[in-house]
Amino acid sequence: MSISRRDFVATMAASGLVWNPTAAAAGLTYYVRYEHRGKRSYGILEKDTIREIRGGLFGAKTPTGAKVNLADAKLLYPCEPTTVLAVGLNYKSHIGNRPAPTKPELFFKPLPSLVEPGGEIIIPPDAKNVHYEGEFVIVMGKTARQVKESDALQYVFGYTCGNDVSERDWQKGDLQWWRAKGSDTFGPLGPAIVTGLDYPKSRLQTRLNGEVKQSQLLSDLLFDVPAIVSFASHHVTLQPGDVIYTGTPGSTSAMKPGDVVEVEIEGIGILRNRIR
Amino acid sequence: MSISRRDFVATMAASGLVWNPTAAAAGLTYYVRYEHRGKRSYGILEKDTIREIRGGLFGAKTPTGAKVNLADAKLLYPCEPTTVLAVGLNYKSHIGNRPAPTKPELFFKPLPSLVEPGGEIIIPPDAKNVHYEGEFVIVMGKTARQVKESDALQYVFGYTCGNDVSERDWQKGDLQWWRAKGSDTFGPLGPAIVTGLDYPKSRLQTRLNGEVKQSQLLSDLLFDVPAIVSFASHHVTLQPGDVIYTGTPGSTSAMKPGDVVEVEIEGIGILRNRIR
Repeated sequence: MSISRRDFVATMAASGLVWNPTAAAAGLTYYVRYEHRGKRSYGILEKDTIREIRGGLFGAKTPTGAKVNLADAKLLYPCEPTTVLAVGLNYKSHIGNRPAPTKPELFFKPLPSLVEPGGEIIIPPDAKNVHYEGEFVIVMGKTARQVKESDALQYVFGYTCGNDVSERDWQKGDLQWWRAKGSDTFGPLGPAIVTGLDYPKSRLQTRLNGEVKQSQLLSDLLFDVPAIVSFASHHVTLQPGDVIYTGTPGSTSAMKPGDVVEVEIEGIGILRNRIR
Repeated sequence: MSISRRDFVATMAASGLVWNPTAAAAGLTYYVRYEHRGKRSYGILEKDTIREIRGGLFGAKTPTGAKVNLADAKLLYPCEPTTVLAVGLNYKSHIGNRPAPTKPELFFKPLPSLVEPGGEIIIPPDAKNVHYEGEFVIVMGKTARQVKESDALQYVFGYTCGNDVSERDWQKGDLQWWRAKGSDTFGPLGPAIVTGLDYPKSRLQTRLNGEVKQSQLLSDLLFDVPAIVSFASHHVTLQPGDVIYTGTPGSTSAMKPGDVVEVEIEGIGILRNRIR
């Protein structure tokens, strides 16, 4: 069952996962949700192996003893939210000349918008202007209701990558953003959830067909993780597994069928999706 | 276990349910979700009795044989959606001088906004202007993806009452309506789902502390059930149990703690909630 270093690197690259001995030594743990032989499980990724855990992400996370080669598993989006929130206008580089918001400006994405790492982003038949939005995503770990900023990080499980795919014509023309940002497959998520990451030092980068389109340090978030979690939880109770996309930096552009879009965050991984 | 006619009427009135022999003769069936002795079940309401069914609303709905007196059950919101949609600007009486939309204008409500019939609508600490919006609600029965208008009714399971509670200051001041219409308890739903109802003939009425505030025939919906279901399903795949609030008629006003708000739809029932 051993694979060569070259195969290992190729597998990790293909799946967008960034586990390495340095990351492990730094106290980072990578959780994945995956399908293997028709069964869906949660596991911890170590090197080229997924070790299955019992009871999902929010229990004891005891290994069952089952192991699967990463190359043999189909990765799924890494948690099962009931509520998906997202923040608009959260980097100065994205806001441009518009006034900066005085509070996190949130909206919902529906569950059918979620798509797994490696899955396809499908452009709806009547859509003309579908953009990527590479984003850093918060994964909740505990039920959070009216949580103070100073306590908020205790309610966070970890972080992953997301793509808040957006149809700009609908975003401008509709009363609300439901289909502009909520159409089926408009919410790629994954590949892994990392715990233990000191996120502000990480860089977010979005590439379209290999070309860097967005690049920003997470320390540039206008509202940071505690501010977002606290504000959201004062209105909508968050449950373990719920996710919050934290906004996109810089500018965006349209994607067309066949394009490959990648959202990479240092210390988390690469979320790679093809457009159809 | 027999109850008098007077007790029966009192129980039905208290729970907001409208089952009666005429309704049954008209081919209407009333489904409820309820809790009894700590167990949550689905059932069919007949007169003063809930007959438990197996496998939820979307299977064979075979009676288990268990019966519960309506007066002994705690009613829950009557289905378990994953996506909750709502329509804005769907009655001429509500739009006033604004231009009528050319397509259903949708938005999402999150699951924590749902509250059971008889449950409390909680005014958030920082909210100042919380209005009722009595609404007719569609309950989906089958997975619906890009459904044609002419086929749409085949995907609908039934109908219930909803209250799209709205904080008007947030609705005006925020980028999106996430907390204006999505705060915890801002989506009362129920009491029963009726199947077999020829809905356009029914009148929707909202009462605040007994005073009629909204009254409109459902035939006045600008976008009817097939139009809404078809348009929504072209962008967001709908699952059995998903619900769509269809918009509110006329004008609305602020509610204060202690108020009782009722949304009544002929042939469905009365959704009654107290404000806290």
